[in-house]
Amino acid sequence: MKKSADSDELSSRKFGLSQLQELEARLLHLEQRDPSSPYYRGSDPVSLPHGMPPRRRFMLGAMAALGTAGAHSAATAATPGAIERTVPPDATKIQGVGVAVDDGGYGGRSQFETEVRTRYATKTTESSWSFTPLQNSMGIVTPSGLHYERHHGGIATIDPTTHQLYVHGMVKQAKKFSIAHIKRYPMLSRLMFMECSGNGLTEWAKPTLKTVQGTHGLTSTSEWVGVPLSTILNEVGLRPGAKWLLAEGGDAAVMTRSIPIEKAMKDCLLAYGQNGEAIRPEQGYPLRLMVPGYEGNMAIKWLRRLEISDTPFMTREETSKYTDLMPDGTALQFSFLMEAKSVITYPSGEMLLQEPGFYEISGLAWSGRGTIKRVEVSVDGGKNWRDAILHDPVLPICHTRFTLPWEWSGQEAILQSRCTDETGYVQPTIKQLADERGLSSVYHLNGIQSWKVAASGEVSNVHHY
Amino acid sequence: MKKSADSDELSSRKFGLSQLQELEARLLHLEQRDPSSPYYRGSDPVSLPHGMPPRRRFMLGAMAALGTAGAHSAATAATPGAIERTVPPDATKIQGVGVAVDDGGYGGRSQFETEVRTRYATKTTESSWSFTPLQNSMGIVTPSGLHYERHHGGIATIDPTTHQLYVHGMVKQAKKFSIAHIKRYPMLSRLMFMECSGNGLTEWAKPTLKTVQGTHGLTSTSEWVGVPLSTILNEVGLRPGAKWLLAEGGDAAVMTRSIPIEKAMKDCLLAYGQNGEAIRPEQGYPLRLMVPGYEGNMAIKWLRRLEISDTPFMTREETSKYTDLMPDGTALQFSFLMEAKSVITYPSGEMLLQEPGFYEISGLAWSGRGTIKRVEVSVDGGKNWRDAILHDPVLPICHTRFTLPWEWSGQEAILQSRCTDETGYVQPTIKQLADERGLSSVYHLNGIQSWKVAASGEVSNVHHY
Repeated sequence: MKKSADSDELSSRKFGLSQLQELEARLLHLEQRDPSSPYYRGSDPVSLPHGMPPRRRFMLGAMAALGTAGAHSAATAATPGAIERTVPPDATKIQGVGVAVDDGGYGGRSQFETEVRTRYATKTTESSWSFTPLQNSMGIVTPSGLHYERHHGGIATIDPTTHQLYVHGMVKQAKKFSIAHIKRYPMLSRLMFMECSGNGLTEWAKPTLKTVQGTHGLTSTSEWVGVPLSTILNEVGLRPGAKWLLAEGGDAAVMTRSIPIEKAMKDCLLAYGQNGEAIRPEQGYPLRLMVPGYEGNMAIKWLRRLEISDTPFMTREETSKYTDLMPDGTALQFSFLMEAKSVITYPSGEMLLQEPGFYEISGLAWSGRGTIKRVEVSVDGGKNWRDAILHDPVLPICHTRFTLPWEWSGQEAILQSRCTDETGYVQPTIKQLADERGLSSVYHLNGIQSWKVAASGEVSNVHHY
Repeated sequence: MKKSADSDELSSRKFGLSQLQELEARLLHLEQRDPSSPYYRGSDPVSLPHGMPPRRRFMLGAMAALGTAGAHSAATAATPGAIERTVPPDATKIQGVGVAVDDGGYGGRSQFETEVRTRYATKTTESSWSFTPLQNSMGIVTPSGLHYERHHGGIATIDPTTHQLYVHGMVKQAKKFSIAHIKRYPMLSRLMFMECSGNGLTEWAKPTLKTVQGTHGLTSTSEWVGVPLSTILNEVGLRPGAKWLLAEGGDAAVMTRSIPIEKAMKDCLLAYGQNGEAIRPEQGYPLRLMVPGYEGNMAIKWLRRLEISDTPFMTREETSKYTDLMPDGTALQFSFLMEAKSVITYPSGEMLLQEPGFYEISGLAWSGRGTIKRVEVSVDGGKNWRDAILHDPVLPICHTRFTLPWEWSGQEAILQSRCTDETGYVQPTIKQLADERGLSSVYHLNGIQSWKVAASGEVSNVHHY
């Protein structure tokens, strides 16, 4: 078969099922007039009383398949992740799409839902990141298709049947583990947030990005599933004096970070699952090291090697990168922990409140140290604070959803949220952080976000103290 | 775009290209015999000398589109939901795929992960169901793409900008709500299981389906997000004497069920979100009524109408269908609640244990009445039971993950799990249920599942008491 002008037309969105339906009708008409046809109805055919004959049903199936197929070239541009379907004027008057007819048994989202993770305009797409659209977030789980990304050499594509994890160094017995082997060990699942230490990096000096997707979208929550790292470390046996562990990725960046053994034994996870299925390729398929509450870059993706040592490895990512430059010229190194942080996701930047009246303020809070104990919300730029409602489940090292009912008077308002975690740590203002750390450091901004609601209802990103 | 041999193969395999060609030939044959057709060739038609007429070219175009689409997303045919990528011999030696380069900002799963929800072989695809592949389940969240389905008239495709929910009957003020309007009310999110009352319907008399996907796959867990139904009912105002509520879907089946007002006010949810994004089309986009702990068919999808009354509505789905026929010829009606149930998902039917040694038994437990308090596991067909570990979070009306370490001796073993919920209800055996209810009823099978591990390591579905 070769490509024709017609198929170009077809793959463009103009191609309609209506044309195939017209063909379908014509075929039925002709069949009913053909004395040799099993569907012959004499000279004055009427509608088939018993529904479509089998061949007709196949044809409808083919149309549904076309719908998908058309959607795949079209929808990749129009609605990523969706299966494009014909929208009938009244869905009660026409049979719907059958089970597993056009999705192959794995569903996609609605073609009307167009939110995507957006890429930050880095020079290359391989060393880049994309933000989760938090403005539309609901509950605490981030859909896997919208989980934020940060890659240093692009997404590695790895065959899980040949991939291995090599564990060596100061161990009693160096070992290689296949993915199948790792899956044999007792499994642990945990709803957890991740956050890039660069989340908000543009916002230190002045408000820059316009939406909460830009200012805070480098954090997401999934149910991560895997084997406790301690299980594997116990399996190889740590030698006396083992203090650090190097984790190495199998991507083009060969991403490497040093992790204290104490943390590794406490709660790190060799994750092969995310939200009930295999970890997604862009999250490190087939194996990722989860380091709960620590900065995202330490959660090495496409994990292929763990080396045990008595000292840290001083890799590029903990010397040249991912250190915090202080005003006196020194740098904080190994600043692993992601401190408590919160943000109002609704209303947020670039939204428009149509009219005064009731709004439910909603947002997310999280802490690398454990559980969120309290979130306060101010609608007057920090003069007065009210306790927000924390929604179940409130889990350690996990996004927590908070809400607060708000009656907007129609006057200018500054919305802020401030969280407190189980250690008593209170989220600071951006100014407090900048005063202490200066403006040379781009990482670990966890200050209070301010959204200005103008009298016009327009919401914008501001700094307000 | 160019066609490849692969895509020919794919499209012919998945879409039955040969069948479309056969249809094409049949249509041509009939057109040529129809005196009213522009393509009429008299009584002895021969091949068209000048090639296909325009309509035929359209048809071929349609076929080409099928092929093209197959080529674009070979993965869609081979691996639904995946983005097909080249697998380099060593991913560290070549730049990976850039951010948002080939996925449009919405990611898919790995091309190596092929599990799908499988359709039960019903006569039509529109009134049918598909099962979640529980054998590979991890943690508690079901990926939205693998959530089980049960449709009575296919998946309705609905434009959310025009869709409305009409609430009327014994109310003070009948009202129509747009989706945007509903989203303005305070939001509630909740991790919850759903289960079809027909889950396991083939298993009453004897073991029938071979895998846990078949025996138990009509249950899934998502984080559902929406507005409490009580909010909307308070908004319209219930009139004195209001006792029942009719929920009606906007699909071709116009699916309807009666729900007690007490339940509606207690914990029902008008859900527009699932796992952090809009509810999926096959789960009722843009609006579904969640009825926590009650049989899945009451969770009306594509919800368009709520009518308040003082009596139940006696719809088809609560008279002819979804009643439980008892041995004495009477039927249980309005048997809403899904009682406590558990199942071992690993090891389970059709799996093969390669060798004696360590295995972690893993499974799911849930109860429509609330929280799971205990799961016991037996490896000797119920003679001895051990308490399994319940994994956090243990939430009410939600799947709970349990595990138990097991050293398989290599001898025949019968694996069973038995759960107890917060009310003290203990999951019965299938025999206890059958003795009480007979075998005329197909719904509400929540008996203990038995998996036989043969000395060969083969795992199979058995009944064992």
